[in-house]
Amino acid sequence: MQQPFRIAPSILSADFARLGQEVDDVLASGADMIHFDVMDNHYVPNLSFGPAVCHALRNYGVTAEIDVHLMVSPVDDLIRAFLDAGANHITFHPEASLHVDRSLQLILDGGATAGLALNPATPLSTLDHVLDKLSMLLVMTVNPGFGGQSFIPAMMDKLRLARAMIDATGNAIRLEVDGGINADNIGEIARAGADTFVSGSSIFAQRSDSDPNRYDSILRAFREPLDGLSD
Amino acid sequence: MQQPFRIAPSILSADFARLGQEVDDVLASGADMIHFDVMDNHYVPNLSFGPAVCHALRNYGVTAEIDVHLMVSPVDDLIRAFLDAGANHITFHPEASLHVDRSLQLILDGGATAGLALNPATPLSTLDHVLDKLSMLLVMTVNPGFGGQSFIPAMMDKLRLARAMIDATGNAIRLEVDGGINADNIGEIARAGADTFVSGSSIFAQRSDSDPNRYDSILRAFREPLDGLSD
Amino acid sequence: MQQPFRIAPSILSADFARLGQEVDDVLASGADMIHFDVMDNHYVPNLSFGPAVCHALRNYGVTAEIDVHLMVSPVDDLIRAFLDAGANHITFHPEASLHVDRSLQLILDGGATAGLALNPATPLSTLDHVLDKLSMLLVMTVNPGFGGQSFIPAMMDKLRLARAMIDATGNAIRLEVDGGINADNIGEIARAGADTFVSGSSIFAQRSDSDPNRYDSILRAFREPLDGLSD
Amino acid sequence: MQQPFRIAPSILSADFARLGQEVDDVLASGADMIHFDVMDNHYVPNLSFGPAVCHALRNYGVTAEIDVHLMVSPVDDLIRAFLDAGANHITFHPEASLHVDRSLQLILDGGATAGLALNPATPLSTLDHVLDKLSMLLVMTVNPGFGGQSFIPAMMDKLRLARAMIDATGNAIRLEVDGGINADNIGEIARAGADTFVSGSSIFAQRSDSDPNRYDSILRAFREPLDGLSD
Amino acid sequence: MQQPFRIAPSILSADFARLGQEVDDVLASGADMIHFDVMDNHYVPNLSFGPAVCHALRNYGVTAEIDVHLMVSPVDDLIRAFLDAGANHITFHPEASLHVDRSLQLILDGGATAGLALNPATPLSTLDHVLDKLSMLLVMTVNPGFGGQSFIPAMMDKLRLARAMIDATGNAIRLEVDGGINADNIGEIARAGADTFVSGSSIFAQRSDSDPNRYDSILRAFREPLDGLSD
Amino acid sequence: MQQPFRIAPSILSADFARLGQEVDDVLASGADMIHFDVMDNHYVPNLSFGPAVCHALRNYGVTAEIDVHLMVSPVDDLIRAFLDAGANHITFHPEASLHVDRSLQLILDGGATAGLALNPATPLSTLDHVLDKLSMLLVMTVNPGFGGQSFIPAMMDKLRLARAMIDATGNAIRLEVDGGINADNIGEIARAGADTFVSGSSIFAQRSDSDPNRYDSILRAFREPLDGLSD
Repeated sequence: MQQPFRIAPSILSADFARLGQEVDDVLASGADMIHFDVMDNHYVPNLSFGPAVCHALRNYGVTAEIDVHLMVSPVDDLIRAFLDAGANHITFHPEASLHVDRSLQLILDGGATAGLALNPATPLSTLDHVLDKLSMLLVMTVNPGFGGQSFIPAMMDKLRLARAMIDATGNAIRLEVDGGINADNIGEIARAGADTFVSGSSIFAQRSDSDPNRYDSILRAFREPLDGLSD
Repeated sequence: MQQPFRIAPSILSADFARLGQEVDDVLASGADMIHFDVMDNHYVPNLSFGPAVCHALRNYGVTAEIDVHLMVSPVDDLIRAFLDAGANHITFHPEASLHVDRSLQLILDGGATAGLALNPATPLSTLDHVLDKLSMLLVMTVNPGFGGQSFIPAMMDKLRLARAMIDATGNAIRLEVDGGINADNIGEIARAGADTFVSGSSIFAQRSDSDPNRYDSILRAFREPLDGLSD
Repeated sequence: MQQPFRIAPSILSADFARLGQEVDDVLASGADMIHFDVMDNHYVPNLSFGPAVCHALRNYGVTAEIDVHLMVSPVDDLIRAFLDAGANHITFHPEASLHVDRSLQLILDGGATAGLALNPATPLSTLDHVLDKLSMLLVMTVNPGFGGQSFIPAMMDKLRLARAMIDATGNAIRLEVDGGINADNIGEIARAGADTFVSGSSIFAQRSDSDPNRYDSILRAFREPLDGLSD
Repeated sequence: MQQPFRIAPSILSADFARLGQEVDDVLASGADMIHFDVMDNHYVPNLSFGPAVCHALRNYGVTAEIDVHLMVSPVDDLIRAFLDAGANHITFHPEASLHVDRSLQLILDGGATAGLALNPATPLSTLDHVLDKLSMLLVMTVNPGFGGQSFIPAMMDKLRLARAMIDATGNAIRLEVDGGINADNIGEIARAGADTFVSGSSIFAQRSDSDPNRYDSILRAFREPLDGLSD
Repeated sequence: MQQPFRIAPSILSADFARLGQEVDDVLASGADMIHFDVMDNHYVPNLSFGPAVCHALRNYGVTAEIDVHLMVSPVDDLIRAFLDAGANHITFHPEASLHVDRSLQLILDGGATAGLALNPATPLSTLDHVLDKLSMLLVMTVNPGFGGQSFIPAMMDKLRLARAMIDATGNAIRLEVDGGINADNIGEIARAGADTFVSGSSIFAQRSDSDPNRYDSILRAFREPLDGLSD
Repeated sequence: MQQPFRIAPSILSADFARLGQEVDDVLASGADMIHFDVMDNHYVPNLSFGPAVCHALRNYGVTAEIDVHLMVSPVDDLIRAFLDAGANHITFHPEASLHVDRSLQLILDGGATAGLALNPATPLSTLDHVLDKLSMLLVMTVNPGFGGQSFIPAMMDKLRLARAMIDATGNAIRLEVDGGINADNIGEIARAGADTFVSGSSIFAQRSDSDPNRYDSILRAFREPLDGLSD
């Protein structure tokens, strides 16, 4: 069952010199949660940021849900660090851990909810025996860690299959998408079954200083195509 | 020849929710340059932050020298990324690159100055055939990537040997130290030959809101023991 | 078709100072074979023991079947070493070998029977094209190499699917389980399709010096729930 | 839909002291394309040759299609090098790249056609979400990188399943086979669905100096069993 | 200053089916301590045994010093495990840890004494900045992990240099040797500066059932050439 | 003691479509031996060629000495393969083998002579305890595996130190150089102590079809500056 629609701006594209203000603004503009793209220059060819940024936002006063996507390998030490830093949701790639069930359990034992992220080519069968531990399935709609990519068309079918797989469990598992999502295609993607939408530059690059909270217009544009859909 | 003393606060200990302001403050308080501790959770057991933070500070208006210490392996792709992001000095660990001379040349070709960082146990003989490419030698005085460590006593002798090795070249190579440095031991460390001093929490944890620029008092405390030394 | 029930005590939990005696005792008490948990601190976070222990037991006079579960990566050199040491069955994890079919063939060429072990999250589709080489399928019911875990509930369904997959081949492939198995749940696990049961501490920690062979009572407790099941 | 039959001699078995002449001869004898087996001593236990050999054959005047099978990990840098060297088709193993979709796109962006190669044990589900980017599916019928192996019988069923999977897409994807193929079994393999046949020593070891082009007889022997099959 | 001579039998060559008895025997025959050769099939091409064997011997009642030589990489987790298991001395190879000083400190913090082991080709300069943390320097006189090797002649000079390096510190650092040592060459090796002698098969393969403690004769043969040397 | 001067063309720059002829030509033109640059895309960022090329040249009839420089890691399997293929000299990088002394012994046991290659930054102390096994020391004067580099000036001093180190042994160890060597600088490099000169494109790109053996002129140009030097 599709969960209520949620928009999760990725701070990878925010201004790191004023991160607290950026997060305040995007939340005041209507974002539902804050997304972290954590890259280690090994699982993906880029190094972004780690748990200290999560600590800093909590100390700054951010109480919104923080949704951490680990594009790192191995994962267990960083799972522990993000649990300590106050993360609410932690998602990792099954190829990045030798002991996927164990890493999921580590997240659950730490009081967060657990997710798995699938690269565009990774088959859904990877999930067969761990669906009962998941609260989130993140279908990557571009290849993680590489810049300037568009939504991969074959992912539309993958989303429909993922939607069916989730619905068959009867569990409340969010279907999250990340990569090439914007106001123009978000409606179609939602109709394919996604309910949680990550976006970085398509939100933060649209900052409008005339908006009361700088990101009101762009978030309204993301939200509009979702209205009237049966979320 | 010992170079003019310089204090390089490491932003690893700054408030990441207000990084631009922190950097402005510490520079206005008298810091000489900004130090980046870049960790990839492979060369060291922690993930800190990458080139996007360097870009953000440049966009924010920081014009001070940015001194990047790569605690990552491999190094070449991140060297390129930090050159693009506006770094002035880039230092890496010789164990972290199969082709040390090549990685140094890559830094020089990109217009930055190059340094090597030695772990506490790494012998100085590692430098034998690359001294002519170095502008900086960073002697780690704690083990990089682990928290809560004190200055390792055996490093005092290593600094004296490093000082002699540098002086024998006749080149202007900075001797930088990082780890467990504070206002109490900085004088002795300078007398052992160091001229560039990295400090993270010993500076940023001493923020004083009654100081005009928040870090004036602590930087004065760091600077005082250096006065009168023949830098 | 479910094979005759067999209980395989794992010597990982035996007393290593008197290993020959322990093995003699557990066999005299009714164990069917001896199970080796071989860990290399790379595929799993623990280092247990290698082929020399297999040699030693053969020299000591053990003629029972030795069933080796390799939790190591890579696998080929240790396969060769355990073949030389007198192993009867060798099982490895498909993620641990780049050339799974080749490693299976290596076992067969050495005169042992071959098995694959699946981590809790590993899908059964991994077996699609090698079922004809298998005499054993080991379904891990905890995550290998970590201590103090209970049987993972989702594995009950996985066992039923594995049972069906094996039965569809018409071949005599044992369905082995390892992790969190004890006298209380062994009956239910057998009804889900398992026929070969590994247990370490649930057997060796129940040593009773008043038993004729020290482990008679505990093995009887394991065997009892299996009586009357159509093995 | 099965594509027109093509025979692709692998130069791994040709005489490297006279490679240009060997390639001229085998093409004049009726080979359809030239196959490269590129091995890096990491993905497979052998080191064969790299992009310089492709450059050399182009400079020598070879205009036939060059079909590159990368048995290397990682793949992206060698994909770029073979694109520069004039390759027409590039195939890699999905286990050898963390970002399979990205590596396929890299091949396509470089103007070549893209393929994936499956080890004997690798399941077909690996292909689920990338079939629209493939022009070639290479089913390995021996384990790559090891010598002296025969065609693995279980691969016959795998070929039939692969054929059905390809046909369901409606796309023109070649089904290539490599390993243990000779004039005796090529007919049966074609009937299982393969249309592109790689062979190394079964061709080059059959050089006949009395043939006009040295390899006329052996290629005729390969071709004969395919005549009359509905390719 | 050369420390009192000590003979340390390596249990790698003992009978693993009766390990407690073997250790009792060799100690009763006059051995000074028990040596563990821990191999992980990654740092060396063999898998021997791990911390559970140390636990078992302590539980069995062994109170002699246990001297652990880690031929593993990485080292920190196994250092912790052997500290928990009751090891007295822990030695590792500097190439096996990215943070050598940190790993030494970890041993010291756990209450054991720390050592470094040098492969035959590893230069002594590796020790330059950590000598103050060492209680043991192990000079490998064969290549670790490979069988059937003889004492490497060039190691005689290396021992003399190591002796001088140790003496220059004024600290009580043992100079241990391992590899190809027997009753015939132990005297000459002691004269080169070694004071602690590891031997596996040269001791355990000389078991004599007519000796009161099985190993009395062989240990006497080892001890004899040392008598009268100024230890 | 400097050995007789020898020029060793690297076939990396020869025409791979006519390799036998190229080797015949360069030998007939006066080259002293044939140099192989073997690259595995792991130790260096390029994949060149492996032992099959050595086999092919032997089968073709080449009897000249073949001098193999392994830029690969690990090294032992390729050492064995090149011994089988007929190599006379095998050189590897000490960073590329965990067990340097063992790998050298493997070469010697196979009947070839052994060498070590030092990257520009690698210190000479690496050789301290293995000089008695070496017949060749290869000082890289560019970084291996990267194209378009010039001779690194700091290598001139390194060559003088290497010369002194070799002379102190009294053994006949060749001092080989590779990288950026041409007819203009070969004299100065010889005066610094080198006696064996590798060159690839500076020889093969100077092919002159009017020369009787195509490379007579260029080899004469290389040889000339060496005349009169006390080799």
